[in-house]
Amino acid sequence: MGAKKIRVLAFDVFGTVVDWHGSISREVKALGLDVDPNEFATRWRQGYQPAMAKVASGELEWTLIDDLHRMILDDLLAYFSIVDLDEQQKQHLNKVWHRLSAWEDSVEGLNCMKMNHTICTLSNGNLGLLTNMAKHARLPWDCVLSAEVFKKYKPDPNTYLGVCRVFDVDPQETMLVAAHQSDLDAARACGLQTAYVERRFEFGKGSPKCVSGSSENTLHARDFIDLADQLAHKY
Amino acid sequence: MGAKKIRVLAFDVFGTVVDWHGSISREVKALGLDVDPNEFATRWRQGYQPAMAKVASGELEWTLIDDLHRMILDDLLAYFSIVDLDEQQKQHLNKVWHRLSAWEDSVEGLNCMKMNHTICTLSNGNLGLLTNMAKHARLPWDCVLSAEVFKKYKPDPNTYLGVCRVFDVDPQETMLVAAHQSDLDAARACGLQTAYVERRFEFGKGSPKCVSGSSENTLHARDFIDLADQLAHKY
Repeated sequence: MGAKKIRVLAFDVFGTVVDWHGSISREVKALGLDVDPNEFATRWRQGYQPAMAKVASGELEWTLIDDLHRMILDDLLAYFSIVDLDEQQKQHLNKVWHRLSAWEDSVEGLNCMKMNHTICTLSNGNLGLLTNMAKHARLPWDCVLSAEVFKKYKPDPNTYLGVCRVFDVDPQETMLVAAHQSDLDAARACGLQTAYVERRFEFGKGSPKCVSGSSENTLHARDFIDLADQLAHKY
Repeated sequence: MGAKKIRVLAFDVFGTVVDWHGSISREVKALGLDVDPNEFATRWRQGYQPAMAKVASGELEWTLIDDLHRMILDDLLAYFSIVDLDEQQKQHLNKVWHRLSAWEDSVEGLNCMKMNHTICTLSNGNLGLLTNMAKHARLPWDCVLSAEVFKKYKPDPNTYLGVCRVFDVDPQETMLVAAHQSDLDAARACGLQTAYVERRFEFGKGSPKCVSGSSENTLHARDFIDLADQLAHKY
């Protein structure tokens, strides 16, 4: 093959490993809030990139995702005119991001990949969120890495190269796994290898997304079982 | 009882979870170096506190333990007049700290404690070192935390309080577990609860250490199985 051995697999998390849309919709529905659960989940996530952009631009100082999620949630509750949640209920709802469910292939696939590689998160989620999520969803990370460690949000190069530095490996020995092409493009620009994973229903069963991925990715996988198989045969 | 529930257990690692002295002595002996393996291990570890002190004082800029270990190793090889290791062999020997063996009760005890608590490292070892060690010794951490995350070495308060911030818990809900009283004293000064673990042979079978611990510790345990039992009954 000639490809350099992959030693570290770094995973994007929201949408790639866990089903944020389904998990949040279900919890909002169970709460009995007078909103469309799908729209609530989608709008909460839509606030995420603009909030992080404010940190990247310096408009906001370094702020953890837990706190960004809360700022977006407060706007969302106002938008939907929801006034009957007390502070404790809001705090609990905000931590739904710690209780997201894994896609059904995630745990089995990660356990396979862990046998021959170091598997870690590389998420903009904070360390506490990612650790609680891992306990909840039984995600067997070797190490939980986060933008919080590097004090920069993806797609800042310091996050991708930070993984390489932490494990003392070359970018070519590191692979970012994600369901989002923009994340993979930024990683490839830093010299990392990339694996695109199809998560057609990231935005819900009613809103399938295009999962063609770029031909520039090192690998393209249907799910984590497929990715584990491809890695076992190629690396 | 009246005690606040412990939610996070943070573990010192070298000496507390893993047997650095035995592991290094064995590897040095297997290498066939013309030295007393016990003395070699002990001297390597003795260089650790002074090296970190240089970082704390600002004499050295922020430096990872892997690099501090290498500086001490180079001095040690000169001290013992060992000249027959090439660069690759030195790098491999330096990473013996990534291959330390767990005390025989560590893995079972950690798996028990993990059921009701978040278990994480709080070590001056760097993230890559601690992650490789966890894979090698099958340590089931929920999260690998390190001085590297906080850019301060223990006993700096930012390390102990950093754990509380990461998991959004009060110091009283956090317990440091260590075989070293000075580490526990520094954690208690920050408001954390403390558990002393007896590791009588941390410095080798021939050099048993005093394991009385301070009466100010919240708990005193013979080993991790005993600690898991005590936590299950009290918290």
